Amino acid sequence: MPYRSPVTDYTFLLSHVVGYDRVSGTEKYAEAGADMVSAILTEAGRMCDEVMAPLQRGGDLNPARLENGALRSSPGFAEGWKAIAEGGWIGMSGSPEHGGMGLPMAVTTAVNDMMSGACLSLQLAPLMSQGQIEALEHHASDAIKALYLPKLISGEWSGTMNLTEPQAGSDVGALSSKAEPNGDGTYAVTGQKIFISWGDNDFCDNVCHLVLARLPDGVPGTKGISLFLVPRNLPDENGNAGVANSLKVVSLEHKMGLHGSPTCVMQYDGATGWLVGEEHGGMAAMFTMMNNARLGVGGQGVGVAEAAWQHAMAYAMERKQGKSASGTIADHADVRRMLTSMKADVFAARAILAACAVAIDMGNATGSAEWKARAAFLTPIAKAFGTDTGIAVSETGVQVHGGMGFIEETGAAQFYRDVRVTAIYEGTNGIQAMDLVARKMMDGGEAAAKLLDEIEDHAERARGRLPELAGPVWEATETLREATEWMVAQGELNDRFAGAVPFLRAFARVLGGHFHLIAALADPGGPREKLARYYINALLPEHAGLLEQAQGGCADLYAISLEELSA
Amino acid sequence: MPYRSPVTDYTFLLSHVVGYDRVSGTEKYAEAGADMVSAILTEAGRMCDEVMAPLQRGGDLNPARLENGALRSSPGFAEGWKAIAEGGWIGMSGSPEHGGMGLPMAVTTAVNDMMSGACLSLQLAPLMSQGQIEALEHHASDAIKALYLPKLISGEWSGTMNLTEPQAGSDVGALSSKAEPNGDGTYAVTGQKIFISWGDNDFCDNVCHLVLARLPDGVPGTKGISLFLVPRNLPDENGNAGVANSLKVVSLEHKMGLHGSPTCVMQYDGATGWLVGEEHGGMAAMFTMMNNARLGVGGQGVGVAEAAWQHAMAYAMERKQGKSASGTIADHADVRRMLTSMKADVFAARAILAACAVAIDMGNATGSAEWKARAAFLTPIAKAFGTDTGIAVSETGVQVHGGMGFIEETGAAQFYRDVRVTAIYEGTNGIQAMDLVARKMMDGGEAAAKLLDEIEDHAERARGRLPELAGPVWEATETLREATEWMVAQGELNDRFAGAVPFLRAFARVLGGHFHLIAALADPGGPREKLARYYINALLPEHAGLLEQAQGGCADLYAISLEELSA
Repeated sequence: MPYRSPVTDYTFLLSHVVGYDRVSGTEKYAEAGADMVSAILTEAGRMCDEVMAPLQRGGDLNPARLENGALRSSPGFAEGWKAIAEGGWIGMSGSPEHGGMGLPMAVTTAVNDMMSGACLSLQLAPLMSQGQIEALEHHASDAIKALYLPKLISGEWSGTMNLTEPQAGSDVGALSSKAEPNGDGTYAVTGQKIFISWGDNDFCDNVCHLVLARLPDGVPGTKGISLFLVPRNLPDENGNAGVANSLKVVSLEHKMGLHGSPTCVMQYDGATGWLVGEEHGGMAAMFTMMNNARLGVGGQGVGVAEAAWQHAMAYAMERKQGKSASGTIADHADVRRMLTSMKADVFAARAILAACAVAIDMGNATGSAEWKARAAFLTPIAKAFGTDTGIAVSETGVQVHGGMGFIEETGAAQFYRDVRVTAIYEGTNGIQAMDLVARKMMDGGEAAAKLLDEIEDHAERARGRLPELAGPVWEATETLREATEWMVAQGELNDRFAGAVPFLRAFARVLGGHFHLIAALADPGGPREKLARYYINALLPEHAGLLEQAQGGCADLYAISLEELSA
Repeated sequence: MPYRSPVTDYTFLLSHVVGYDRVSGTEKYAEAGADMVSAILTEAGRMCDEVMAPLQRGGDLNPARLENGALRSSPGFAEGWKAIAEGGWIGMSGSPEHGGMGLPMAVTTAVNDMMSGACLSLQLAPLMSQGQIEALEHHASDAIKALYLPKLISGEWSGTMNLTEPQAGSDVGALSSKAEPNGDGTYAVTGQKIFISWGDNDFCDNVCHLVLARLPDGVPGTKGISLFLVPRNLPDENGNAGVANSLKVVSLEHKMGLHGSPTCVMQYDGATGWLVGEEHGGMAAMFTMMNNARLGVGGQGVGVAEAAWQHAMAYAMERKQGKSASGTIADHADVRRMLTSMKADVFAARAILAACAVAIDMGNATGSAEWKARAAFLTPIAKAFGTDTGIAVSETGVQVHGGMGFIEETGAAQFYRDVRVTAIYEGTNGIQAMDLVARKMMDGGEAAAKLLDEIEDHAERARGRLPELAGPVWEATETLREATEWMVAQGELNDRFAGAVPFLRAFARVLGGHFHLIAALADPGGPREKLARYYINALLPEHAGLLEQAQGGCADLYAISLEELSA
């Protein structure tokens, strides 16, 4: 069965679960009312289903490759990119001043999610451009904005992010790329970068790299890093792609999945670049980009989870076996358990994602510190739980297929292989969890507490109508509140870090319960209430064990020496 | 870092944790005392490390292939098979009468586990032969035994299992392969079989297929199925491989992993076969083979988990990053959490595996119904938890590697891809769980209750020395006992099945706590006590949420119609 973008699910989610009406109630996003959003999602969904989804399998079978230094993308990806660009989906959040649609992140997130489910390898290309567009809007000079933004937004040019170096993975501050002033306002950038997604392509006139490098007077560590825009082709006097810059793709990685997306080793040999943002202010600029990219990657996980679920569901309803009511495996209790859990988790992860996007939009539209704190708090949860759900759901999808799940022709395996990287890139999920319990709790747990208050207040109000669902959500939230207070109270960061991953997952589980409860109230007796019932009874209880692990501290871990551990 | 077989861990486990001395205390296995077992494991470990492990990567890069109908195995696999055969590792459990070593399953299981960690694709070949050897020993005529067993045990010939057909996966009773008497005591077997592991090779003189097919008077369903031995080459008058039989490999599957192991579609066109066991008694014969094959597959999961853990551990201790004590990522709390969890779970899964093997040996050696029931009860847990642990640990291994985990050259991804099938073949893990809560509880829960009594008695005795570890194990066991009693009380099987998978996992979690506690007592203040402490404090709590899900019944699931679920 072909992929169908979850347009109806998204309109329900935005309208009834995550309070999108608050976003369209602001002056900034007043034009993006419910009807318009519905029309936009329908249009985007059509493009995903008809143009992108058919490219999914070919991207795996015919990976991007390097021919004499020139990148050759997978069959049909050039046409796919064109369709994405023409639909306006690259620059949908970009400012109208430069050709963007100026849509809120809630809508952009929905479209990115749907595109990810259709063809993750290709979707990664516009996602990279979106990050660059946002970084330039916030930090670049007017001249750079005027030259680059219209071309990035229209898709004539594409954008990439260059952070990682072989010796500096998650520890970005250890990077050794250099930038020297050329004396004419430009800089000569030299260094090697790895893991550069879509570091080149054969469907844009230019590829623009945002590169982190250190100026001669840059101090060691993150505080001495600056950000440079380094295009593959130097713009000529008319602003078109001109002569080649001093950079090249050295090689492509051979990966477990995501074969349609070229992962490049890039070499910069005194390449001409322009400073973006302040000198030594590269990390600040990068963080702008990374926060939204994290939400984008969370959406990749959710999108693949949706696609893997649809795929498994269709298989289960076709696969005849045994003597059940429908004669298919979809009637077996254990298969039903898998399919229902998958769907319930997709909903939970997507709701968290959408709630995070709404908070970003509210922060942008109102400038409210509270909304900004909410967005910052939800971002690592949306990223880690979204991608963990992508992995878990596609893993279960393989299992639903039985022996056929291990056979590549089926397609279930591809989701599983492709999505695995989403828990790693854009900050590993471990780093997301550490961000949550350290940086995002530097407010003494205030943002967390406000969120927990909201969940409990809602559960309290829901007790009258759905006591058997509201009760467990309220109690789980209380347990989570205790664990949150425990986290905040730990002065030794390693005591937080040792339990960060289970804590984040438990937080997501409880949030999932909250959003399922809202959905249940909006659909009394209907399928959404029934799905909420399954989630709250069967999946929510996971939080208890997780929170016990979360509050264990680091003593047990470090009691075992590395020598003992490795023996 | 190259793979090192866990010889020391196994000798500790057998001697101090799972009571192997009871096995060597029987007359049947009196020769396999602790010193001999240690020597055997050392010898097997050397072969695994030096011969098999170096073949692991090449099997992935150069998959087995079909050339003009002839199978070409991966580079070096022929030499690997020869080394396995010459070491006696194919027939190690085979009866000495036909050239086997007559070793107990506890030892065979250890060697199979170590071989799986070294090179899973290759290890699957002797595992298939072992299953066939056992089936023939139990069910074949003396003539067949005399002709086939020496050659299978020596590795001159190999064996396969042919159950699955395209329309009959887990529902074996739906198969349509036919067998017609030829009038000379042989049968003409016709049909197509799929997913046949090592359906052919280029390093044995003959490949012997055990094929399930239906005689003309066989009733529909499993009761009308018979088992036939169908060799690729018909034995000549001297018992050597003679003329080709009427069968062929039609094609090989293109799989997510395990590329070195050819997965064949087999076509039988009136191929000559010999009946094994009674007419229409094929399922009984197959079950003999399958039970031990399930243990074998559980060992595959554990073996890959061990290898993935070693691989991640070595990477973490080499990968410089940040300013920690060792300067490597192994000092980061979250990385330490991952590595410690991996090791603790490998121990738990391996202990369950070894305990199951000991129970099988005790049943075989003493004929005790109680030991046989224990073995039958532990088998699905050993299979499902062993393979789930293989998947989870190799998944975490990818994560420990960060970005490098997604790159194939690292090798972490291969473990993850290879091991995925182990949760599917030899009965999916869902089927294992259903077996546990239905067939293995047809005794009214007696086998389960005896095991739970033992765990509680042990925890009770351990309270004096390690109260903070014994207490949680005892309490978890009580919770598990309640859930077990709930399961037994459900008359509607679907109420059991809906919670079967979480129930099995919770049972494994508690068993893991039990075995960790035993290990802790055997190593006071040492690394094994410290690892037990981490497991019991951090990982054991998972059981609570699982048991809540396990007792949910099927009502919530079936309340959602398939139409609603798929919408």
